[in-house]
Amino acid sequence: MIGSDASIGYYWFLGKFQFFGFDGSSIMIVVDVLRDFEFETDSSVTLQVQLYQALKSRILTGRLTASTRIPSSRQFASSLSVSRNTVNGALEQLKAEGYIKTKQGAGHYVSDELPESFLLVHKKPDVSLLSKTVNAKGLGVSGFGCTVLGELVSDEVSNDLPIGVERVERSEVKNTSFEAGVPDLKAFPIKKWGQITSDNLRIALMGYDSPQGYEPLRRVLADYLRSSRGLECSLDQVIITVGAQQASSIALHVLLNEGDTAYVENPGYIGMRKAIAARGANVQGIDVGEEGIDITQLPSNPTGKLICLTPTHQYPMGGIVPLGNRLRILQWAATHGIWVVEDDYDSEYHYDHKPIAAMQGLGLKEQVIYIGSFSKVLFPALRLGYMVVPKRLVKACVAAKTYMSGQSPIIDQATTAEFIQSGLFLRHLHRMRLLYEKKLQAILEACNKHLSNVAIPIYSGAGMHIVLTFKSAVLKGVNDKDVVHAMNKLQIYGSALSSYYVNTPKYQGLVLGFANTDVSKMDGGIDKIGQAIDNVF
Amino acid sequence: MIGSDASIGYYWFLGKFQFFGFDGSSIMIVVDVLRDFEFETDSSVTLQVQLYQALKSRILTGRLTASTRIPSSRQFASSLSVSRNTVNGALEQLKAEGYIKTKQGAGHYVSDELPESFLLVHKKPDVSLLSKTVNAKGLGVSGFGCTVLGELVSDEVSNDLPIGVERVERSEVKNTSFEAGVPDLKAFPIKKWGQITSDNLRIALMGYDSPQGYEPLRRVLADYLRSSRGLECSLDQVIITVGAQQASSIALHVLLNEGDTAYVENPGYIGMRKAIAARGANVQGIDVGEEGIDITQLPSNPTGKLICLTPTHQYPMGGIVPLGNRLRILQWAATHGIWVVEDDYDSEYHYDHKPIAAMQGLGLKEQVIYIGSFSKVLFPALRLGYMVVPKRLVKACVAAKTYMSGQSPIIDQATTAEFIQSGLFLRHLHRMRLLYEKKLQAILEACNKHLSNVAIPIYSGAGMHIVLTFKSAVLKGVNDKDVVHAMNKLQIYGSALSSYYVNTPKYQGLVLGFANTDVSKMDGGIDKIGQAIDNVF
Repeated sequence: MIGSDASIGYYWFLGKFQFFGFDGSSIMIVVDVLRDFEFETDSSVTLQVQLYQALKSRILTGRLTASTRIPSSRQFASSLSVSRNTVNGALEQLKAEGYIKTKQGAGHYVSDELPESFLLVHKKPDVSLLSKTVNAKGLGVSGFGCTVLGELVSDEVSNDLPIGVERVERSEVKNTSFEAGVPDLKAFPIKKWGQITSDNLRIALMGYDSPQGYEPLRRVLADYLRSSRGLECSLDQVIITVGAQQASSIALHVLLNEGDTAYVENPGYIGMRKAIAARGANVQGIDVGEEGIDITQLPSNPTGKLICLTPTHQYPMGGIVPLGNRLRILQWAATHGIWVVEDDYDSEYHYDHKPIAAMQGLGLKEQVIYIGSFSKVLFPALRLGYMVVPKRLVKACVAAKTYMSGQSPIIDQATTAEFIQSGLFLRHLHRMRLLYEKKLQAILEACNKHLSNVAIPIYSGAGMHIVLTFKSAVLKGVNDKDVVHAMNKLQIYGSALSSYYVNTPKYQGLVLGFANTDVSKMDGGIDKIGQAIDNVF
Repeated sequence: MIGSDASIGYYWFLGKFQFFGFDGSSIMIVVDVLRDFEFETDSSVTLQVQLYQALKSRILTGRLTASTRIPSSRQFASSLSVSRNTVNGALEQLKAEGYIKTKQGAGHYVSDELPESFLLVHKKPDVSLLSKTVNAKGLGVSGFGCTVLGELVSDEVSNDLPIGVERVERSEVKNTSFEAGVPDLKAFPIKKWGQITSDNLRIALMGYDSPQGYEPLRRVLADYLRSSRGLECSLDQVIITVGAQQASSIALHVLLNEGDTAYVENPGYIGMRKAIAARGANVQGIDVGEEGIDITQLPSNPTGKLICLTPTHQYPMGGIVPLGNRLRILQWAATHGIWVVEDDYDSEYHYDHKPIAAMQGLGLKEQVIYIGSFSKVLFPALRLGYMVVPKRLVKACVAAKTYMSGQSPIIDQATTAEFIQSGLFLRHLHRMRLLYEKKLQAILEACNKHLSNVAIPIYSGAGMHIVLTFKSAVLKGVNDKDVVHAMNKLQIYGSALSSYYVNTPKYQGLVLGFANTDVSKMDGGIDKIGQAIDNVF
């Protein structure tokens, strides 16, 4: 019974009559505005925070007005059937944040220093203050924002997960049957990986590192790329990125202005095309043939600034650009001052012979930005990519990375460095090469058995996926995106070939990853694709 | 002695006379062009790869010309004193890549299908093909590239490591004395962290995940932000990023067009300013006072599109924006359609009372992009940040992240989620709060003892750093960047206050982190700063 005007009474509160002291008007008001409040006893939020939030929101919305007196903590605690500590904690926080004030000897009051106009306007949120930010597009976002939204929408039917945002739910190793770009996850030596991680854990406590990447990783990576991929590079030219996607984004930002044109393979990797569009640049497709990009289609008076290639295993069609054409492309690029972005995404998996060396190592390396990823050779969730850039571009690319995202996480970089250094990496690659070669045979046999009348497989002795093109004479009018939808219903993934094309698709068909599907399940899976096609046809 | 024209002879090769068969002219040529070649026996590159590289580079530079016959592997092996397997491996690779061809029954020849013009041009690299790409700036990079390079150069004297690219060499826990933004690394429960990582390792094998972030992490984070920071948000509005820097970059890309203006605190966080410049937008500074940003300086007819704030602990000056001003800023922003980017970078560390709740939770959340980071509360090398965006911006921001870098690495996300979920996170925060409060006292005492005649400490009861402003009357003409250089020589870090200013710095001084310096070393460290100032003065 604090305060001279305190009295005693009953009040209908929280569903029952309660006995408590109150001090004239103020507690009536406070109790009244808390009438719609109930503690959520099963919430993870403490009672103290719940009370704090309830009072705060009522002050902010003007339901508790300036100078209203707050009941004493004892009154409050009693009326709410909670401890005084709970109430005191909430009141202290409100005081610290400026919602309530203390008058000496007279308890707490709602602050009279809050801008009343805000509280009033906020009370009626439908008299929207927000009109100005809601522009023509209804969002108030930038041109970039509209572009990426547009790209996203146009991509919604695609199932190309490496770049997609479609499938959110996932945990542990799941069914990814025929999803392109996913390696054999069960075959990854995750225990060894975990051991190395544990051994290197203290690296995590090194503080901030260089945005260019963890030096020991850049060193072993440069060694590996020189010896296995024929690159001419030093560790100073290697930049570690968040997947190959960030490497592409950095290259496109540093080398293109908005409105510039970039040449891409058609059909080609969707992620690159999206990144170019997000950069505000234009995409011009150049058709691919059996030997990768068709060099007779390279414009003789090019206006583009950059060309993106997957010369060692064209994505998705699988062609391998022969040496002579590589040199001709480089010569064309150098003559016209065009940058070459070489995406070497799954170059490690060639089954007939060692993979052909990268274009970066063919002599005009000042013209070439080389991009690679550990997603396919280790595991996608690692999300480590890299780029090797001409010396004169290192500073600009590192600066771009600095302001776009800063350094990359350390622990995974350190683990990857030791995984390579210790020889485990090459051993893993070797095992996977043998395994995937068998899987390639198995998927081709299954396609031959179940789909030979409707589709033609396209593949080289390389990579982790095949392409099936539909026989248009047989599957008249069948849309490959419909087939993918029908496949998904049968829990079979894979992508629609048409979505890889810049404009009108030349073929309808499927891009099927085979690396993360057991040999024993290949036949049944491909049989289901046959069913899916039947369901659509 | 294969081939009808084979004969036998001696040849001066690799430093000694050697006996071998040769077939007329061809081996002479091959041996001749290999005259400057020696195996590096101590190299990590195999002999086979070395031989492959030597022959390849000689073909590419035109020293081995089209149709030159390659000696048999036996001849080659004998002349080079290596095994035939080594030679065969190298020749097979050259054949696979198209450098050499086989004529039936007549051995290997240098391919005649390589574009001769390339080889000739390449032979004389000084007749540069590259002239066209080397533009006025000498690099051929985009406007963006020039901008980030410019920002980098202007930043070279700064020691602000969270954004810096300066210090590359580092491993394990190192001396980071007084470096701002580094938490107490030795106090981090790294063993527990490692255990959780091990337990969750199989998460790594889940394949591709959503670019928005690992759902369990978004869920616990949304809970935490609601209960501890007063946010109004659901997990659908949370986006996991590569540090707060990527969150800033995404927000700036989605909300600003090139040429737009953004308001920043002056002095303020360098990384944000750089990210705005990298976006091609203009920066306009608004002075800060003791209570954070000076709201009387907010333009009444603003032309800017966005304002960046650190309201809960102004970086670097430490002011805390009181509730009334928070509401006034929000009202101003909503009235003029200005986005508020709220960087809540070290809000967890307030020592007098619970930190004041975030602006995002004050009712006009549609206007606010909230950004946070685990760098300060866990460890910087983790490189996990997050943003909470209005529902209508989620799609655009996720699309931006998708095309800029795609998903974030999984393992660290899963470990962080469990670290929070298990209660270890709050316990760690609590311990650190007690620890840092002591460190704050210690650094203030040390400054009082050693620097009171030259500098005034500025701090609030919060955060992980203090600011010292130089007494200009005493330290006439002393440049704080020179002081930092002198400090670095004594292995003391910390940043120059002047580098945080948009234009002319109002104060010269130092920004000193105290979280990663032992209490026992505080006095000695600050004493050294006194020496450094003496050395410069």
